[in-house]
Amino acid sequence: MTDTAAPARTAAAPAPAGDTTRVELDGVAAAARRAFAVTAAATAAERAAWLRAAADALDAARDELVPIADEETRLGTARLTGEVARTTAQLRLFADAVLEGSYLEATVDHPDATTIPPRPDLRRMLRPLGPVAVFGASNFPFAFSVAGGDTASALATGCPVIVKGHPAHPRLSARTAEIVADALAAAGAPQGAFAHVTGHETGVALVQHPEIRAVGFTGSLGGGRALFDLAQQRPDPIPFYGELSAVNPVLITPAAIEARADALATGLAGSFTLGAGQFCTNPGVVFAPAGSGFGERVRAALDAASTGPAPMLTDGIAAAFASGIADLAGRDGVEVVAGDPTAQEPGTGAPVVLRTTTAAVVGDPGALLHECFGPSTLIVEYADVADALAAARAVGGSLTATVHAEPGEGLAPIVEVLSEIAGRVLFAGWPTGVAVSWAQQHGGPWPSTTSIHTSVGVTAMRRFLRPIAFQDAPEAALPPELRDANPLRIPRRVDGMLVLPERGSEHAPAAG
Amino acid sequence: MTDTAAPARTAAAPAPAGDTTRVELDGVAAAARRAFAVTAAATAAERAAWLRAAADALDAARDELVPIADEETRLGTARLTGEVARTTAQLRLFADAVLEGSYLEATVDHPDATTIPPRPDLRRMLRPLGPVAVFGASNFPFAFSVAGGDTASALATGCPVIVKGHPAHPRLSARTAEIVADALAAAGAPQGAFAHVTGHETGVALVQHPEIRAVGFTGSLGGGRALFDLAQQRPDPIPFYGELSAVNPVLITPAAIEARADALATGLAGSFTLGAGQFCTNPGVVFAPAGSGFGERVRAALDAASTGPAPMLTDGIAAAFASGIADLAGRDGVEVVAGDPTAQEPGTGAPVVLRTTTAAVVGDPGALLHECFGPSTLIVEYADVADALAAARAVGGSLTATVHAEPGEGLAPIVEVLSEIAGRVLFAGWPTGVAVSWAQQHGGPWPSTTSIHTSVGVTAMRRFLRPIAFQDAPEAALPPELRDANPLRIPRRVDGMLVLPERGSEHAPAAG
Repeated sequence: MTDTAAPARTAAAPAPAGDTTRVELDGVAAAARRAFAVTAAATAAERAAWLRAAADALDAARDELVPIADEETRLGTARLTGEVARTTAQLRLFADAVLEGSYLEATVDHPDATTIPPRPDLRRMLRPLGPVAVFGASNFPFAFSVAGGDTASALATGCPVIVKGHPAHPRLSARTAEIVADALAAAGAPQGAFAHVTGHETGVALVQHPEIRAVGFTGSLGGGRALFDLAQQRPDPIPFYGELSAVNPVLITPAAIEARADALATGLAGSFTLGAGQFCTNPGVVFAPAGSGFGERVRAALDAASTGPAPMLTDGIAAAFASGIADLAGRDGVEVVAGDPTAQEPGTGAPVVLRTTTAAVVGDPGALLHECFGPSTLIVEYADVADALAAARAVGGSLTATVHAEPGEGLAPIVEVLSEIAGRVLFAGWPTGVAVSWAQQHGGPWPSTTSIHTSVGVTAMRRFLRPIAFQDAPEAALPPELRDANPLRIPRRVDGMLVLPERGSEHAPAAG
Repeated sequence: MTDTAAPARTAAAPAPAGDTTRVELDGVAAAARRAFAVTAAATAAERAAWLRAAADALDAARDELVPIADEETRLGTARLTGEVARTTAQLRLFADAVLEGSYLEATVDHPDATTIPPRPDLRRMLRPLGPVAVFGASNFPFAFSVAGGDTASALATGCPVIVKGHPAHPRLSARTAEIVADALAAAGAPQGAFAHVTGHETGVALVQHPEIRAVGFTGSLGGGRALFDLAQQRPDPIPFYGELSAVNPVLITPAAIEARADALATGLAGSFTLGAGQFCTNPGVVFAPAGSGFGERVRAALDAASTGPAPMLTDGIAAAFASGIADLAGRDGVEVVAGDPTAQEPGTGAPVVLRTTTAAVVGDPGALLHECFGPSTLIVEYADVADALAAARAVGGSLTATVHAEPGEGLAPIVEVLSEIAGRVLFAGWPTGVAVSWAQQHGGPWPSTTSIHTSVGVTAMRRFLRPIAFQDAPEAALPPELRDANPLRIPRRVDGMLVLPERGSEHAPAAG
């Protein structure tokens, strides 16, 4: 939870050295291209050492960085201190995964004259794409910004990274970039492996730059869609991995309401107001039984916690929230249960709980079921679970979907629908908070993401890799990952069978 | 090799029942959506049985299908008979891979309070995207058409398929589709799991249809780019997996020319004229030492084999080849070594060997280094290997790149450049012929493909899947693939460690 006081906002400070010019950007991109020859050929041990050096340097600078971040984002020092630890743990997890090596999907097919058609010697692995552009997000100034998950996963694969810092935290971005660049250089990474640029036009030019091979982006649907379109309209389209927008539906069954309505109300109130509601995984739509009075219980929970207005990341974000929530509250069939949508103070967001019906959302899903970035949630009252599920299908793609049920209830039809619309399905929890692990999935059907990959967790690396196969290569021409002796002792598939290195190896995978 | 006679071409026959109407397409798409609920929930054993049933039915119908295919494509019964076997082996390989189960990337992370942030129980696997549109290619009427690799890999994952047949072989497409549909139905696949539609406008509507979740396409750069753009411009963009265009460069070192120039010339002559040069992997650009007379040796090899004009797939393809090769031959710095670019007969393609220099291709790569679909190759004479590699970088993305060298030559700089521009790097072979296996990669940087995935080989399945994670799910709500007991005995990652099922299991992977 953030501070509930609402300090006056100042205009965002300009980036310390002014926006990056086109000439500077070309220089940065050319350096990244040159660096790629080195980063692509670097060993797993070298890349792991780079990631760990960046993590160590950020941890060491924590007490310098957190106050800058707090001044620029108002997210509070407790949250921000935790976010630094999350960010550096993430860098170290990717280092572990690089050493473990299965992310390379190394595959060896020896020649076989009996297959149709007969097959030659074929050996496949993944290789890095090239320089990657990363757009930092406003709401996670560490974990989804300069040294966040996109940067860490791209560097892990051997791709140079050019970060376009978010204008909401320019000084933090610049200082973080200095620390990361210095740490990487000290650990032996080549000049050009990492750079930081600023400016809106710079971002546009970056997505269109011939040297850029992929883009990682976390931000709004409008801004993300515009950059996605530019990436696809290039003479040579490139992958654009955008994490854009989600309403993160929650379904509470009648039995769950009956068993623990107050606990659910308290949980929801805490989740949708966390960080002034500025989470991609904010539970924005909650399906609750009609007539259960769940909205009033959420209002009571907000009152009990004295959850008032909280500073938002920027004045623009606060203004967009005020406008969006007022619009939503004014729609036919929508009533206000808690808060005042039309009385938001500049620079802050105060909690709002709205209520409507399944008939209303099915009747106009475009108007009622879009993300309203900030501390609000829309309770959708349903007649029965089938009615709720029919309305949930109208939600569209989302990062998460949550069900609260009681033991013994038949979950199959609920799980089927929630699996269809979301990338992560939660049981008896709240979607805010995204663990970083091997099994995490942060991404779902459009518009929550623009791809079939994740932006959080170990498999985020797959986004910045492409397969290459070597046919009838002499042993000496093969990368070590594909040589018969498997000198790096990585997991591989050989003639169709997965083969693991012996346990106790120095490259044994970390538990993550 | 095809017949060298050039029979008169008739206009392509119309699709038997006329083009699919919009109303019919909506019905087909709705049926695919309904079928998806069943195909997505089907067991691996069920989907494997569907694929094998389709394979068996096609094998059984071979003697009926090959003559239709030969009449419509003029590819010859030997080649087409082999292509049926390749197609059915491919269907069976995907069945094996579905049963093996590692394609699901099943991952179990048990709760761990020591990670940063602490992690809940998270379990991840891949799930099918939904109905997939497949565009059949003209040049492989079996293996890249109605029941080809895109269809097989999509059905394997549990995605319904709607094939838009290629107008160059309408009767074969319709009859193949009937056989596949009947076999799938007899094996228990749901109504709507597979359908065949026809017509150019139908294809456009298919890519834009709300029920379609991904597209597989093999064809021209122009047509592919247009459909790619439509897919990306949808309100909800979808993945478009296009295999579009490649020149497939070959680099012959001075030592290799010295050791075996005639054998290389014979190999090249056979490869670039195979199937009238109508292979995606045709070697269209060959870097050879200046003054080595390699072009004349290729001409001699063509003469020795009496390789003359061969019928092309359609009159339009033949006309495009004639026009393209005449344009290329007329460029500054390009000379004709064999054949007559300006004397192509309608409906056929006669071999053409052109020659130019590295300076010419670097000076105007756009004009000289594009695919010219048909029996031609461009020999680019170089001063030394460094000169050749600098020119090779100008080639752009390609499906394959080949090096012919002698034992003991330093291959590292050559492999580095070829790996940068291609998806498959061959040593001492010719790129035509694409084995179907676990390690195959058919796809490379733009414009050879539009994605970071392959359209041939087991990993082609990844294109039609997206990850989903379950957080704190009760055991009963989990799919069997993610339950602790691993009842399907599939390979999984558990708490960061890959774990294989015991050998000797009934689900042991096939050797592919």
